[in-house]
Amino acid sequence: MAHPVSPLAPKSYPDLPAVPGVRFATAEAGIKYKNRTDVLLVTFDPGTTIAGVLTRSKCPSAAVDWCRQNLSGGTARALLVNSGNANAFTGIKGKSAVELSAEIVGKATGVAASEIFLASTGVIGEPLPAEKFESVARGLVERQSEGPWLDAAKAIMTTDTFPKVATATVEIDGEAVVISGIAKGSGMIAPDMATMLSFLFTDIAIAPAVLQALLARHVTTSFNAITVDSDTSTSDTCLVFATGKAEERGLAPIESLDDARAEAFGAALHDVLFDLAMQVVRDGEGATKFVTVSVVGAESDASAFRIAKAIADSPLVKTAIAGGDANWGRVVMAVGKAGEPADRDRLAIRFGDLIVAEAGERSPRYDEAATSAYMRNEDLEIGVDIGLGSGEARVYTCDLTHGYISINGDYRS
Amino acid sequence: MAHPVSPLAPKSYPDLPAVPGVRFATAEAGIKYKNRTDVLLVTFDPGTTIAGVLTRSKCPSAAVDWCRQNLSGGTARALLVNSGNANAFTGIKGKSAVELSAEIVGKATGVAASEIFLASTGVIGEPLPAEKFESVARGLVERQSEGPWLDAAKAIMTTDTFPKVATATVEIDGEAVVISGIAKGSGMIAPDMATMLSFLFTDIAIAPAVLQALLARHVTTSFNAITVDSDTSTSDTCLVFATGKAEERGLAPIESLDDARAEAFGAALHDVLFDLAMQVVRDGEGATKFVTVSVVGAESDASAFRIAKAIADSPLVKTAIAGGDANWGRVVMAVGKAGEPADRDRLAIRFGDLIVAEAGERSPRYDEAATSAYMRNEDLEIGVDIGLGSGEARVYTCDLTHGYISINGDYRS
Repeated sequence: MAHPVSPLAPKSYPDLPAVPGVRFATAEAGIKYKNRTDVLLVTFDPGTTIAGVLTRSKCPSAAVDWCRQNLSGGTARALLVNSGNANAFTGIKGKSAVELSAEIVGKATGVAASEIFLASTGVIGEPLPAEKFESVARGLVERQSEGPWLDAAKAIMTTDTFPKVATATVEIDGEAVVISGIAKGSGMIAPDMATMLSFLFTDIAIAPAVLQALLARHVTTSFNAITVDSDTSTSDTCLVFATGKAEERGLAPIESLDDARAEAFGAALHDVLFDLAMQVVRDGEGATKFVTVSVVGAESDASAFRIAKAIADSPLVKTAIAGGDANWGRVVMAVGKAGEPADRDRLAIRFGDLIVAEAGERSPRYDEAATSAYMRNEDLEIGVDIGLGSGEARVYTCDLTHGYISINGDYRS
Repeated sequence: MAHPVSPLAPKSYPDLPAVPGVRFATAEAGIKYKNRTDVLLVTFDPGTTIAGVLTRSKCPSAAVDWCRQNLSGGTARALLVNSGNANAFTGIKGKSAVELSAEIVGKATGVAASEIFLASTGVIGEPLPAEKFESVARGLVERQSEGPWLDAAKAIMTTDTFPKVATATVEIDGEAVVISGIAKGSGMIAPDMATMLSFLFTDIAIAPAVLQALLARHVTTSFNAITVDSDTSTSDTCLVFATGKAEERGLAPIESLDDARAEAFGAALHDVLFDLAMQVVRDGEGATKFVTVSVVGAESDASAFRIAKAIADSPLVKTAIAGGDANWGRVVMAVGKAGEPADRDRLAIRFGDLIVAEAGERSPRYDEAATSAYMRNEDLEIGVDIGLGSGEARVYTCDLTHGYISINGDYRS
């Protein structure tokens, strides 16, 4: 936990407005860490709808199993999140721990278990001492307030070096609707799932099915388009809670995707998801560079995504970036290993706006000095044109440094 | 090139016997390195058959393209290998360079281009100055001899920290047949292909189709079962040359896979392939630990392989091993992300003979002290029982250390 703050951390944080219908508090339950908050309880006014995407891991945590079951109800009244223990691969003890957690929250808040959502993040395989929530539950309920959101983001951190918050306000029918979110995540981050943990809150009134459709659509280009280390977590959870409080200001509920307002709300939802996802990459374990991998000209968007992912996951590409080395040959290697349709002799590669390779060989326009200078930037773009079709995709990643090795060589011990 | 020798390097090298019908020499052509050999020329007596497996990369090197074309002929008279430049992604210049290389070898040896095989390893994207072979070609032919094999292995090294040789002698019909091989490879190493570069030589008489079938079968459990960093090379090439000289000692050619002797020869071939492949892992960039990942109980062998590969490729598993951390939770994570059939609650995991997890949770037999002590060994085994079927596979890998970052952060510069 003593790792220095990522050099890619935001220089300042936005002020997050209160979200009508949402209150929260944090506490020190002593799950694993000492002298820091490790539990977050959020409660929602009646009528709050929920949508979520969860890890596709075949070994999901007990909390993920719990959420998957409760998501079918479409409504939520409480969310309990702890850091320090993932309650993953804990067998029957894990199931008991989520049940006890829900029971403690239910007793303190008067909410039914089916409307309580749970998330845990931290070490895998250690039984979660859920009884520790008992001693802090009453205090959490009593101290609830509408802010500050940074406290909520801090309580759910593990190897994160900075808290992650984002907010957007969208005007719909003349009414300002707020969407605020928090996230955690730094290692064990790869697309093909949601994220480590992310929670978004809005006051719009929206049917669960519509909210779910919008979330699923926009998670594809945000949380599902990032990779720190190609390792997919057992605990990835992204939940969006909509309190519906905007209806009290006269804003009718969004009941269908065909409602024109769904598009406007979805765009704002995307902005917050994307902002949080990029912050997770910027806090990638050991990261010193932020990298956008843009692939165009693939046979399909799905093919472009797999090629972009192969580049973004390649340890050789990532170490070259860490070393400030414009080693585009490793990008060629990664395209080649992706297993997707590609024609070596049509391939073009650029770093930022600098063409380095085209038509299957080093570009005559290649400028070693200019490219090396470009590589010293903190934010980099690797552009690849496959030259076969119109499929395109973007994946966001960071470099692979000594910091990653140091952080992960002694995380559990 | 100044990286220290891998702590996993062999303590001594076997004496490799001469292979009747095979002669070779090395030279300093100055392709990239100074004061070391970087070219190997091997020549074969008439009647030598050849089999090969090549990278499945969509961006193969020009030399790979050349070999793929010539392999169809089934016979070989010469092999030229250079280090320092991969002649990959060099476009029309790459094609010209292989043609010029073959022309130079042909002139010096009197061999037809269709029986000349070429391999290049080193930087990707730099045009190969094949004209440099011209000045060393005559000397290479004049200095040819039947040994020592270590010189051949040294000339093809790039980031390798030790030369890789292996040999086996198999008695067939009372005659001793020799199989000797060399390999290079340290980074950009992942299964789903052959290896970086490996060349095997034998004096048996064998039909090319039989040799090809045996090679394809045994590469699956040797070179295709290793991973250093999940990155597949553009240049992977494994060629086996059979001079047929054993026929002069009365050993009839093996013309069919149904010939009982094919099995015995195949087993010896496997031993040499396996030995070389393990040496590549032991020279994995920055490696300090050798790891065997054994998966049993999967739905099929192919499924077991993909799970084993997901574990062996996981940066989090590999950094934990580097740190001597018995972090089996990360093994669970890797099983979960593999996308293969798995049931969390049937999963069992062991480190060596020490059961750490079973039935979906930490084993009651888990012994932290014993497991931590085990992790200090240089050679480790991670065993996973999926508990679903009878599919099994093994993948061999190394840990991920600061050494890997150092080597690859400044390789090209």
